[in-house]
Amino acid sequence: MFMHNKTLQYTVRVSEPNPVLASLLLEQFGGPDGELAAAMRYFTQGLAEEDPGRKDMLLDIATEELSHLEVIGSIVAMLNRGAKAELAEASMTEAELYMSLTAGGNSHTQSILYGGGPALTNSSGVPWTAAYVDSRGDPVVDLRSNIAAESRAKIVYERLINITDDPGIKDALGFLMTREVAHQKSFEKALYSIADNFPPGKLPGVKPYADMYVNASQGEGDAQGPWNTGEQWDRVDDLEQVLPADGGAGMPSVGLTDAQDATLAQFKQRLASKPDANPVTGADLGAGPGAGKTTDEDMGGAADIQEASAMAKAMAPAE
Amino acid sequence: MFMHNKTLQYTVRVSEPNPVLASLLLEQFGGPDGELAAAMRYFTQGLAEEDPGRKDMLLDIATEELSHLEVIGSIVAMLNRGAKAELAEASMTEAELYMSLTAGGNSHTQSILYGGGPALTNSSGVPWTAAYVDSRGDPVVDLRSNIAAESRAKIVYERLINITDDPGIKDALGFLMTREVAHQKSFEKALYSIADNFPPGKLPGVKPYADMYVNASQGEGDAQGPWNTGEQWDRVDDLEQVLPADGGAGMPSVGLTDAQDATLAQFKQRLASKPDANPVTGADLGAGPGAGKTTDEDMGGAADIQEASAMAKAMAPAE
Amino acid sequence: MFMHNKTLQYTVRVSEPNPVLASLLLEQFGGPDGELAAAMRYFTQGLAEEDPGRKDMLLDIATEELSHLEVIGSIVAMLNRGAKAELAEASMTEAELYMSLTAGGNSHTQSILYGGGPALTNSSGVPWTAAYVDSRGDPVVDLRSNIAAESRAKIVYERLINITDDPGIKDALGFLMTREVAHQKSFEKALYSIADNFPPGKLPGVKPYADMYVNASQGEGDAQGPWNTGEQWDRVDDLEQVLPADGGAGMPSVGLTDAQDATLAQFKQRLASKPDANPVTGADLGAGPGAGKTTDEDMGGAADIQEASAMAKAMAPAE
Amino acid sequence: MFMHNKTLQYTVRVSEPNPVLASLLLEQFGGPDGELAAAMRYFTQGLAEEDPGRKDMLLDIATEELSHLEVIGSIVAMLNRGAKAELAEASMTEAELYMSLTAGGNSHTQSILYGGGPALTNSSGVPWTAAYVDSRGDPVVDLRSNIAAESRAKIVYERLINITDDPGIKDALGFLMTREVAHQKSFEKALYSIADNFPPGKLPGVKPYADMYVNASQGEGDAQGPWNTGEQWDRVDDLEQVLPADGGAGMPSVGLTDAQDATLAQFKQRLASKPDANPVTGADLGAGPGAGKTTDEDMGGAADIQEASAMAKAMAPAE
Amino acid sequence: MFMHNKTLQYTVRVSEPNPVLASLLLEQFGGPDGELAAAMRYFTQGLAEEDPGRKDMLLDIATEELSHLEVIGSIVAMLNRGAKAELAEASMTEAELYMSLTAGGNSHTQSILYGGGPALTNSSGVPWTAAYVDSRGDPVVDLRSNIAAESRAKIVYERLINITDDPGIKDALGFLMTREVAHQKSFEKALYSIADNFPPGKLPGVKPYADMYVNASQGEGDAQGPWNTGEQWDRVDDLEQVLPADGGAGMPSVGLTDAQDATLAQFKQRLASKPDANPVTGADLGAGPGAGKTTDEDMGGAADIQEASAMAKAMAPAE
Amino acid sequence: MFMHNKTLQYTVRVSEPNPVLASLLLEQFGGPDGELAAAMRYFTQGLAEEDPGRKDMLLDIATEELSHLEVIGSIVAMLNRGAKAELAEASMTEAELYMSLTAGGNSHTQSILYGGGPALTNSSGVPWTAAYVDSRGDPVVDLRSNIAAESRAKIVYERLINITDDPGIKDALGFLMTREVAHQKSFEKALYSIADNFPPGKLPGVKPYADMYVNASQGEGDAQGPWNTGEQWDRVDDLEQVLPADGGAGMPSVGLTDAQDATLAQFKQRLASKPDANPVTGADLGAGPGAGKTTDEDMGGAADIQEASAMAKAMAPAE
Repeated sequence: MFMHNKTLQYTVRVSEPNPVLASLLLEQFGGPDGELAAAMRYFTQGLAEEDPGRKDMLLDIATEELSHLEVIGSIVAMLNRGAKAELAEASMTEAELYMSLTAGGNSHTQSILYGGGPALTNSSGVPWTAAYVDSRGDPVVDLRSNIAAESRAKIVYERLINITDDPGIKDALGFLMTREVAHQKSFEKALYSIADNFPPGKLPGVKPYADMYVNASQGEGDAQGPWNTGEQWDRVDDLEQVLPADGGAGMPSVGLTDAQDATLAQFKQRLASKPDANPVTGADLGAGPGAGKTTDEDMGGAADIQEASAMAKAMAPAE
Repeated sequence: MFMHNKTLQYTVRVSEPNPVLASLLLEQFGGPDGELAAAMRYFTQGLAEEDPGRKDMLLDIATEELSHLEVIGSIVAMLNRGAKAELAEASMTEAELYMSLTAGGNSHTQSILYGGGPALTNSSGVPWTAAYVDSRGDPVVDLRSNIAAESRAKIVYERLINITDDPGIKDALGFLMTREVAHQKSFEKALYSIADNFPPGKLPGVKPYADMYVNASQGEGDAQGPWNTGEQWDRVDDLEQVLPADGGAGMPSVGLTDAQDATLAQFKQRLASKPDANPVTGADLGAGPGAGKTTDEDMGGAADIQEASAMAKAMAPAE
Repeated sequence: MFMHNKTLQYTVRVSEPNPVLASLLLEQFGGPDGELAAAMRYFTQGLAEEDPGRKDMLLDIATEELSHLEVIGSIVAMLNRGAKAELAEASMTEAELYMSLTAGGNSHTQSILYGGGPALTNSSGVPWTAAYVDSRGDPVVDLRSNIAAESRAKIVYERLINITDDPGIKDALGFLMTREVAHQKSFEKALYSIADNFPPGKLPGVKPYADMYVNASQGEGDAQGPWNTGEQWDRVDDLEQVLPADGGAGMPSVGLTDAQDATLAQFKQRLASKPDANPVTGADLGAGPGAGKTTDEDMGGAADIQEASAMAKAMAPAE
Repeated sequence: MFMHNKTLQYTVRVSEPNPVLASLLLEQFGGPDGELAAAMRYFTQGLAEEDPGRKDMLLDIATEELSHLEVIGSIVAMLNRGAKAELAEASMTEAELYMSLTAGGNSHTQSILYGGGPALTNSSGVPWTAAYVDSRGDPVVDLRSNIAAESRAKIVYERLINITDDPGIKDALGFLMTREVAHQKSFEKALYSIADNFPPGKLPGVKPYADMYVNASQGEGDAQGPWNTGEQWDRVDDLEQVLPADGGAGMPSVGLTDAQDATLAQFKQRLASKPDANPVTGADLGAGPGAGKTTDEDMGGAADIQEASAMAKAMAPAE
Repeated sequence: MFMHNKTLQYTVRVSEPNPVLASLLLEQFGGPDGELAAAMRYFTQGLAEEDPGRKDMLLDIATEELSHLEVIGSIVAMLNRGAKAELAEASMTEAELYMSLTAGGNSHTQSILYGGGPALTNSSGVPWTAAYVDSRGDPVVDLRSNIAAESRAKIVYERLINITDDPGIKDALGFLMTREVAHQKSFEKALYSIADNFPPGKLPGVKPYADMYVNASQGEGDAQGPWNTGEQWDRVDDLEQVLPADGGAGMPSVGLTDAQDATLAQFKQRLASKPDANPVTGADLGAGPGAGKTTDEDMGGAADIQEASAMAKAMAPAE
Repeated sequence: MFMHNKTLQYTVRVSEPNPVLASLLLEQFGGPDGELAAAMRYFTQGLAEEDPGRKDMLLDIATEELSHLEVIGSIVAMLNRGAKAELAEASMTEAELYMSLTAGGNSHTQSILYGGGPALTNSSGVPWTAAYVDSRGDPVVDLRSNIAAESRAKIVYERLINITDDPGIKDALGFLMTREVAHQKSFEKALYSIADNFPPGKLPGVKPYADMYVNASQGEGDAQGPWNTGEQWDRVDDLEQVLPADGGAGMPSVGLTDAQDATLAQFKQRLASKPDANPVTGADLGAGPGAGKTTDEDMGGAADIQEASAMAKAMAPAE
């Protein structure tokens, strides 16, 4: 059971209203790496967890993330507090209110639709979706997802800290950011407390495919590193060699019944293309006298394509 | 630039059609841990990556995931191949076709809407969304997300292998599952090839909050483990102690202008509640003579609530 | 700040596992009228609320809804507990596991993707979205939304109670259902504690349009009731009379600059249709010798359309 | 059957084009409280309604909302009419067109993607979703949802009226806003024409839980009002008293078969954590010489955290 | 199987960074007509295609669209390259970074959430969804969808070309735009290579309804053209004539069992409205002394509504 | 302005209730090719259309599609009519109601959430989204999208007709299917009434790229047809030849300022990978004594992979 104390986990001190900044901070309220996503990720895992220790940890952290949701939501509410009343009371002229809503970010939707309340959207106004929650019901998998999620949340908080100079907001964001670091540490400890946590699950990998590195992207920029080189790896550069990897025909097949075969033959026949035809098409009909107008000039206005290419080649090394 | 060879990376041999199984396998075609999500996660990272080695690796693996998307999609296409033609050609009676579509899973939508083609949905028919792609533009963050994603994909493949006894499908899924293990290994190597990869970003954490563990969920089941105990941790059991963590007032505040203060006062006044009133409400009007009917019986038909509780207490220890 | 006690607000006693029922119960975990939607509706309102009494009430009820989310999620976890382990451990044959996953509802996705954990989806597997949260930042509006939401949640719980005979589940759902009734009562009291709460906002309606009832759907079945008849209403049956309601031209217009007028003229000219032409079209090209095949028979196999109509007329009165 | 007259229900007179304002007005075209949501809410209810009077009313109002959709869409079309032609004809320089698209709101997407046509999105460009439609097939529930929806629509129109000084747009929005008030009145009459409309459904509430008010949020700001005080309420301040409310064990349980018990035991064993270990983790490996860098300074640059707290305390009372 | 060469299909030469322009270009990366939608549309069709020629074509073009996704994504990455590093390194003051993020478009979310990497969203930040992919498993249908999709992509590229004067970007967009034209041509040829491609499917239309044109929108602006006039059409102006088109009762009916009839009667009775009552409603309770305040003035401040109408009439002809 | 007559455009005669069939038919109510999508596609185009003839046609057809939405929704309502009352009145035992809800399709959500009313979802329960509406504000583009949409709707209706033998439903679906054919004909006529309708827009294609066919998918199955062969085509088989197509460097570049260059260098340096290291990773830590367990056996239980390949090769020719 949840209980609540109206004291925040961290005091929210906002210097002055700023609905545009509020709309940016929504990223951590209703965005994919925001506090609701964090709370729901751990809460759904905690409910089904069988290990008592991990269950306790997941519920501890889920609960704290809800408190963080409250902190970030309170900052947003404070930043919108002036604009909320001004629009509701129409205390300014239409032109002034219009200007205040179109100053950047997605503050317009915050004011018009949400009336200045913190909305469960990201900074572009996209509603939060449980598609962000990647709980999968296996602890060695879920803990890795949690570790990744905490590191994502850390970097997003860092970016938000970098764009505001309001000291009270910076402090609160710094607290929230640091807590993500602490939570990542907890999840790391929990993962490595499970013996034999890699690879996940029970089924072993199939040996010939477990150490294979497929060099699928080749050409300029092909590189080596510990991710594809060394004794753990059997690197495949000649892709034909692994095509198909099982040495079979490489084509899909299915065993149909005779009736199905006959029906499929009818289907194919009815919809067969005539490769030798050159039919008049709708586009042929629709192309005017210019017959599908084209130009020899490129769009950029450069004298010609070869010249542009030469420029590009000269430019690229500097990159 | 991408190129394609119509030979599959792994031969697809399906014993017999099964649209229901096809709808389950869609989980790895258009689901959150499926191959499109994998390919797009690494591809979007690769395009913006500055480190040549990682860029090459990301494009290698993104490309291979597209080949996996083709393998899993080809299995789905084979499993649907009979049903596709039967419905299109109406080669069976309406009743037979109706039965074939309502045999389980979400095969009905596959047939009616997608005509038997592999659809970019999960196994419940939910369309794939880029909300599944958690690329954040920082390699130590993104690599952790990739590691987690590969482990999620591994476990989902394992579950699918566990529910089919078609040897050809099992083989292909085993190949795909094993490749996820190999990819996780690559991403791990790449992460640990970056010095000082924890915590992510440049901003350091705030010391008093970095080692704090907040025991926010208490009561029966409270537990200890390396995630909250030991020298890395300063565990807080008395939550009042960290309320608020900064030692401040714990209430949100914002500095408004005088005009904003006045407008806000007007807003509050206009919408104030009268706590001492006890108004007649719509529900009061709507409650019939039974006045908001209630019953003393519980829903389950047990004799009374106390008895049920007793039963529950007897049952729980066995759990 | 939130705190948590691992004791549930209501004991969850499940007689036996049933993943299909679990997938139906998800409606109140991650569905539009489920507990997360309730909690987030009141929580987002509470954060921005200016009236101390309402703020306290909103946070009280938001917190309790989180506890309900825990109860319903725990029921789901218990119902899935057997299936979760069976699939993870592959303790049954593939055929048995396949059968257990395709027994109805959306239990297949619960097992394959979520591994038996409670997922924030509705009973069709649709992920929860903040589009369900209709908080608008004005209390007389939001309280009406809350009243409606509680009544929706009540009826969905009632339906779920009607389909299960597990006494422990029935009891817990009965508790949750009753709490929605209590919450509706609170929100009603809070709404009517605000003087002058209808219509919402400050702007008055425009008199000629405030009492007008537009009888826009006519013909058989046209009816009267207090919603369109009586002294509060000025009912319009002859729709031409209100076309347009302002007595103007009824056409849209905009004042363009001369340059815009000229550009628009060019746009119109370029894309003008030739109403007098009868061009050959792609469909004309594509229609085979049957020239857009049609049949005189109706689809139902009835002898003819007139006969079917006669049947329909005979059937309808019985309706 | 629907019919249409090209005369608008209200004349649309737009003074001058303004794509930014157009993008804001989309809130009532394709937003959650917009006219499509209203029309579809009542239309879907009307189709399944059994009561002839309500069915007629629902279809009357659904039809009128479609006419409103046409009015608001026509305003948007007029506001975009200049920009539409300018971009299509490229009648200005690239720089001018670029500037015209990035002047605020979401007008950029309106121009680039929708070509100036009214798009079924909200003011942030989020596509309309049927998740906004909360029809539930029970009239005492649906009418409450309709009342709430009309009140939401009223307040959003009021906000839009407050931000534009174009008299023709103001007039049209005033008409639309007033019609929402009239519709709310109709739905109220219809709700209270049903005897015994509270609580919804047939199942009575369970008595001990129907009058209970759970004071789940405590601390500074705890308040009383008719929503939690008075003879209708049994207020619980000591939460332990209701933990669990049924007097049971407060823990979830399920009756598993012996085979399931054994499988679950195997599952638990395989994934058990070792609480006494203190394993080296990935984060330990990744933390550089700075060992998980932290700082004693807060982010805001204030001298120290205690000082900031003191400031916060001084500031808060002014709030 | 897919392979990749790190050389782009078209060289990307960006003159200078511009995150706002980057956010606009996302329309063709992760928008509904963007390159991912194109690639996935053709790829999903190709996997299930039975005709060898069309299968080859679909895979050719799907593969090329992936290469285009790479080109447009690389432009976005280049445009964001400066901002990415500046925010990550915090190389500017908070105020400067804040300004750089709020300069227009949706560049704020690109920077905060995606860290400057190309995101699979449209230009409003809406995540890509497979709802954009309209593959239906029938070639004469799918090819028409492909033709339409290519024409949509062409016009969106044209709009983007019109708003940028960076010659390198213009060139690359011109290449991509032209390829859409070429692809449309291919799909047209493939469509018309199928004999008897209209109407799609096997079932013929019902003759009386195949040539009927229902003039459902009447009044000022009613027009004629080859789409409703001529020998292919049987135009219905008097809508009553086709109401219902089958000559039946025009009312819905269903054959219920006696038990169902009885249950339905009970349902109707329980929820019947009392059309003759005029109940006091919640709105009646809530309307203050102003009794549902209205005004005789219109919103626009014009002297009166008649005057405004007169103005509108004078204005409209100029339209 | 819209008006409505309660007589349906086509009489709905349903033989007996069938909630499963109802859930399948939702595909054309709230699915991507359903009637709401059609109505909204044409309605949004009509509002912004400048050509009087096309505007009239678009509004005619949009209005008729709304009437079709009513017909299909009425069928769904009739099919659900028995189940609706049975669940609401609890006229059967829990077990009977449970069975009735889990008989297939997505009828469970229809009953539990929507109470038997027609829901704006597809046949998998996915809520309708305006992402289905592809109006782009250019008539030669939009008309092609409309043609494609009508052909998609035709084939989906055909599939639904094939799975039901209720004559009344078959008739009504046959009517609706045929009207899609008629609408496609209208849109074709309208498209070809615009001179010079291909390619869309004003900008000509760039000549060297307009006729190029890129044979991007090669290997077994490479084919020729009028889509890649003939005088309209310049087919590229050697992909290196077009890499990059502009003859440039094929690498992305951007002109950064010196300050940006320096910041970027710092960013690269901080996050550089060490390609020569072979770091111990989290996976290395987590791999148990089995060291990342693998097996030499394939999943399918075939004796070995070579044998399976041989089988596949033997099987494939039969395909």
